[in-house]
Amino acid sequence: MNLEKVAIVGASGYSGEELVRLLGRHPGVEIVALTSRQLAAQTVEMVFPKFAGQRYAKLAFIGSDIAGIVASGAQFVFLALPHGVAAEYAQPLVAAGLRVIDLSADFRIKDPAVYEEFYGTPPHAPELAAISVYGLPEIYREQIRRAQLVASPGCYPTSIIVPLHPLLKRRLLKPASIVINSLSGVSGAGRSTKTELLYVECNESVRAYSVPKHRHLAEIEQELSKAYGDTVTVNFTPHLIPVSRGIFTTIHAAPADGIEPSEIFAALAEAYAAEPFIRLLGETGMPDTKNVTHTNFVDVAYRHDPRTGRVILLSAEDNLVKGASGQAVQSLNVMCGWPETTALL
Amino acid sequence: MNLEKVAIVGASGYSGEELVRLLGRHPGVEIVALTSRQLAAQTVEMVFPKFAGQRYAKLAFIGSDIAGIVASGAQFVFLALPHGVAAEYAQPLVAAGLRVIDLSADFRIKDPAVYEEFYGTPPHAPELAAISVYGLPEIYREQIRRAQLVASPGCYPTSIIVPLHPLLKRRLLKPASIVINSLSGVSGAGRSTKTELLYVECNESVRAYSVPKHRHLAEIEQELSKAYGDTVTVNFTPHLIPVSRGIFTTIHAAPADGIEPSEIFAALAEAYAAEPFIRLLGETGMPDTKNVTHTNFVDVAYRHDPRTGRVILLSAEDNLVKGASGQAVQSLNVMCGWPETTALL
Amino acid sequence: MNLEKVAIVGASGYSGEELVRLLGRHPGVEIVALTSRQLAAQTVEMVFPKFAGQRYAKLAFIGSDIAGIVASGAQFVFLALPHGVAAEYAQPLVAAGLRVIDLSADFRIKDPAVYEEFYGTPPHAPELAAISVYGLPEIYREQIRRAQLVASPGCYPTSIIVPLHPLLKRRLLKPASIVINSLSGVSGAGRSTKTELLYVECNESVRAYSVPKHRHLAEIEQELSKAYGDTVTVNFTPHLIPVSRGIFTTIHAAPADGIEPSEIFAALAEAYAAEPFIRLLGETGMPDTKNVTHTNFVDVAYRHDPRTGRVILLSAEDNLVKGASGQAVQSLNVMCGWPETTALL
Amino acid sequence: MNLEKVAIVGASGYSGEELVRLLGRHPGVEIVALTSRQLAAQTVEMVFPKFAGQRYAKLAFIGSDIAGIVASGAQFVFLALPHGVAAEYAQPLVAAGLRVIDLSADFRIKDPAVYEEFYGTPPHAPELAAISVYGLPEIYREQIRRAQLVASPGCYPTSIIVPLHPLLKRRLLKPASIVINSLSGVSGAGRSTKTELLYVECNESVRAYSVPKHRHLAEIEQELSKAYGDTVTVNFTPHLIPVSRGIFTTIHAAPADGIEPSEIFAALAEAYAAEPFIRLLGETGMPDTKNVTHTNFVDVAYRHDPRTGRVILLSAEDNLVKGASGQAVQSLNVMCGWPETTALL
Repeated sequence: MNLEKVAIVGASGYSGEELVRLLGRHPGVEIVALTSRQLAAQTVEMVFPKFAGQRYAKLAFIGSDIAGIVASGAQFVFLALPHGVAAEYAQPLVAAGLRVIDLSADFRIKDPAVYEEFYGTPPHAPELAAISVYGLPEIYREQIRRAQLVASPGCYPTSIIVPLHPLLKRRLLKPASIVINSLSGVSGAGRSTKTELLYVECNESVRAYSVPKHRHLAEIEQELSKAYGDTVTVNFTPHLIPVSRGIFTTIHAAPADGIEPSEIFAALAEAYAAEPFIRLLGETGMPDTKNVTHTNFVDVAYRHDPRTGRVILLSAEDNLVKGASGQAVQSLNVMCGWPETTALL
Repeated sequence: MNLEKVAIVGASGYSGEELVRLLGRHPGVEIVALTSRQLAAQTVEMVFPKFAGQRYAKLAFIGSDIAGIVASGAQFVFLALPHGVAAEYAQPLVAAGLRVIDLSADFRIKDPAVYEEFYGTPPHAPELAAISVYGLPEIYREQIRRAQLVASPGCYPTSIIVPLHPLLKRRLLKPASIVINSLSGVSGAGRSTKTELLYVECNESVRAYSVPKHRHLAEIEQELSKAYGDTVTVNFTPHLIPVSRGIFTTIHAAPADGIEPSEIFAALAEAYAAEPFIRLLGETGMPDTKNVTHTNFVDVAYRHDPRTGRVILLSAEDNLVKGASGQAVQSLNVMCGWPETTALL
Repeated sequence: MNLEKVAIVGASGYSGEELVRLLGRHPGVEIVALTSRQLAAQTVEMVFPKFAGQRYAKLAFIGSDIAGIVASGAQFVFLALPHGVAAEYAQPLVAAGLRVIDLSADFRIKDPAVYEEFYGTPPHAPELAAISVYGLPEIYREQIRRAQLVASPGCYPTSIIVPLHPLLKRRLLKPASIVINSLSGVSGAGRSTKTELLYVECNESVRAYSVPKHRHLAEIEQELSKAYGDTVTVNFTPHLIPVSRGIFTTIHAAPADGIEPSEIFAALAEAYAAEPFIRLLGETGMPDTKNVTHTNFVDVAYRHDPRTGRVILLSAEDNLVKGASGQAVQSLNVMCGWPETTALL
Repeated sequence: MNLEKVAIVGASGYSGEELVRLLGRHPGVEIVALTSRQLAAQTVEMVFPKFAGQRYAKLAFIGSDIAGIVASGAQFVFLALPHGVAAEYAQPLVAAGLRVIDLSADFRIKDPAVYEEFYGTPPHAPELAAISVYGLPEIYREQIRRAQLVASPGCYPTSIIVPLHPLLKRRLLKPASIVINSLSGVSGAGRSTKTELLYVECNESVRAYSVPKHRHLAEIEQELSKAYGDTVTVNFTPHLIPVSRGIFTTIHAAPADGIEPSEIFAALAEAYAAEPFIRLLGETGMPDTKNVTHTNFVDVAYRHDPRTGRVILLSAEDNLVKGASGQAVQSLNVMCGWPETTALL
């Protein structure tokens, strides 16, 4: 396997840390730069003691200037930065010919008006959003292969688009009937020092938030609409629960007129039979976040309720792996022509 | 306050323990008997070390025979027993003229066919189910006052019926549009030694269960249908999350034709303005289980989503208090003509 | 019971919140002022939604100026402030004749040099430290009764001094042999937005901290030395564990020459037989924080190890109740001549 | 790397599951048999859904008879069985010439009288205990290389012997001064359906247990005595805390006469400088179980307390990895002459 040089920009958060873990054991990758504004000159093991004694323990962070990243020789750059900030980095890096995998929301939304509606400012680099590829390999594998800029999906959207995409594409569900509830672990909120994220505030606590208009709705509806071929508008209610990692999503939807539940379940099987990271648990299995945390899997089960006529789709993933850094590495594997499961099984 | 003598039958589970806690500090009550098949002769503090040094610490459990309960002089009996078993006790106790508050499902379901559909056997005492009162004081206060047998509601149903009942009664929602997701702490499953309830199996884990037909649907739909005046069939998906106590319920529903969200929210305010245990948090507040655990409150918030047209109702309660033992004590307060908040604030 | 007017200064932290809970249901108390620099004009239910629908829900915080506190008519003032800040308030309040119960460390340490050694600055009001009474009613009940200034003990010290004090006073242990390990829930660190207190950083984590010289050693050794009649120096190692509340302390010590373990255990029984909040679990029982959280109890068990000759003392308490606010209310009860368990059982 | 055939006997518990995870990605190993009395004929993914989609997902468990294990062609057998049961398997497997790595206590204790004292029955195969090697590669690497039977250490002993062994071997500590406190996650108690291991019983709970004579003392004192060259008797107090995985150990001990703390710390550095799985965090670092869970590392820090003269040694490990299955795989690597970190970094 040919060693590719990669840089991770903004490596101090949970997604960045997970990228270091995954890329640190990737046989095809050499990490040539880790950047952070605050951590420059500190080593990986000083910042993340859990990586002491491992491959990149002594690698020192550098500052986050573009010149340094380009000088590192990296051919691939992962951006693990807040939205807004990512665009500032992507522009010069893309211009310099590097291939960029961005974990923020900056390039996920194709329609600038939608971005502004959900993020409160116009997109910082709409011309890049236009050329970016949404980094869900199960759907955009071919485009990712050749992409110069991958907009890696959000954590909630992955858990939602995976079960819904093939069903809407085949028009097996009534879009207006879709109700989505998701439960997320606290790492989804990032390593930010807010009172509401303190241990005592989250432990023995459950609450919904950002109801009814969480930002991830923008990309969820974009992708579902694209699949359906028409505008899809859904309810999405996220909840914060006391686990460190994991997202569990429950979707209720009515089958399209004349569609049998068996057709719906067959469509999922058809769509994902060959996918290494989508595990279909069928009509009796049940996802459980503890079975997917620290892995790149999305587990999906389904039920039909003859009493209401609805189908129920249930999925689980690790928000930091398939919901963020693992999926980004999966895209890298696709971009490099490597087996897609490299470093991820 | 006149001291009433009460017995607690089957006091070894979480609900029984919570009854001991609540009744142990109730100024109007004397606990004259605690029964348990396995714990006879042990004292409260031996079984529940946390009650050492408190009022009933030295009270010894007696066996669970009817004669002993009657001989205790109890005028009120709380049954904290598995369904099926409760009926065996209620029949002779009611026949002996005692007033019974049952925490099981045995008398909640009025239609024997529905009971059998959901519980797998015909009801054990349908004649008692016929005379029982569903013990939700916010709805059945007057009937509870005179009831000889109170069927205290299940934990999930309380969190669901409270927000939906006034809205269906006023026909402000489309019943067929209702989708309910609930998240429950592990104590809801009782103190039963099943592998799936072990710490390691529940910690860092989230999963749905009993999809699509949890037993509580029977009483949920019974009460919602009664409120609406016609059959209501809903989706209800319960999830197990790693907290000891607490239920969070999220309900999505479409307003009835021509109904404004403001009418819906006003109906909740009208229904519950004077209720001491229902706290309406409005369109900006958000329930959080940590604000209701160890209390008898149900917190309810609501939102309107102009994009889909649906309203979202969100509630939180302690499954062992308002969802079980606290509500049973609230019924006792009603039955005795005491201030309804006695021992509960 | 004569209503006493009390004020709580600095009510926005976990200790302040717990004071509101406990004093809010105290039959002898009227809360006339709650102060907070940041929360002035907000109501209790806005700051602590869990108190909505309860007695002081609509009470508004006032700013933290002395004049306002005095003007409130309070006869008793609880200070729930950081150390250093507490002294600024205590001086004028004591001068104005109010009786003050301080939950900080400012007045616990009698020797100014020791205070400076452990807290890094000279004490802010050594003249008040000189007249203060250490607020552990089990030891200083008589002095608390008449105290104008009570220095309520720290959370760790309470769990440590309770088992050791009577044994050192009777010279039943070798002081130099004492090794103390304590495990604390995260609320002990206060509601402060530090990265290390985030949910994800504390969950599935255990670590020691402040080894070997935690600040609480100052008062631990002061009180143990006073009991022993000579300088006692001990090892104390605190650990942070993922619970919201609770401290578990394990103490290993060698009996004094010629002392039988039975004499040690008898001394504990003698010291605490009549104490309502000290529960002795003996040589077979075992404290468990879940049995004491939300209560004012300290549970204490003990063992003798014939193989090493040491005795092991084990204690559990709620760091926010007996370790802070509950103990402060217990002192208030003593100061007012009320039954000591008022509002605490 | 030459593929070695291995069998895992008793693979249904947490240690067995972790062996499947670790050996399933080991490049030198082929798992040829998984046995379980209750799970025969079920596949790995049926028993452990988290392994679906991975290498051994479709491998079916076989019954636990010796003939089947031998017939599988396995050259190495891991026994993940309760003590007592392990001996029944080890005898015929060793007799058949297979190399056995046993995770139980059956062969750890060299002195039959000590085994009987701690385990309540005479050892089942003392002749095998006599030839077994204690499987701590950092100490017995050379003997493990040639061993036919490895007695893999207990979880607590590993966290204790690692920091103490080099210090006692060099006689730098006073053995009689040693006091050990350990905090363990709940998986250490195995997947057994006991009330005290239920989620609700462990969450928000801390307690010590098996005080003062936990079974692991037998091997702890055996190995410490061997290192010291004379009988070492210590206090060891284990505590159960609400994490799934991880052990944190805190040891207090007095330096031997005339020994400086710096000599003690230098001895640790000398002993472990070249060890890939022992990370020394020095006098300022602090172990944290979250940095070692899911890894084979033991993190060790140390402090000197000039006030009492004692040193404090602090260690953290994953009880299921370095404390059980990872260490067993490390022994396999040694036995096969592979890099010791294979499949473990």
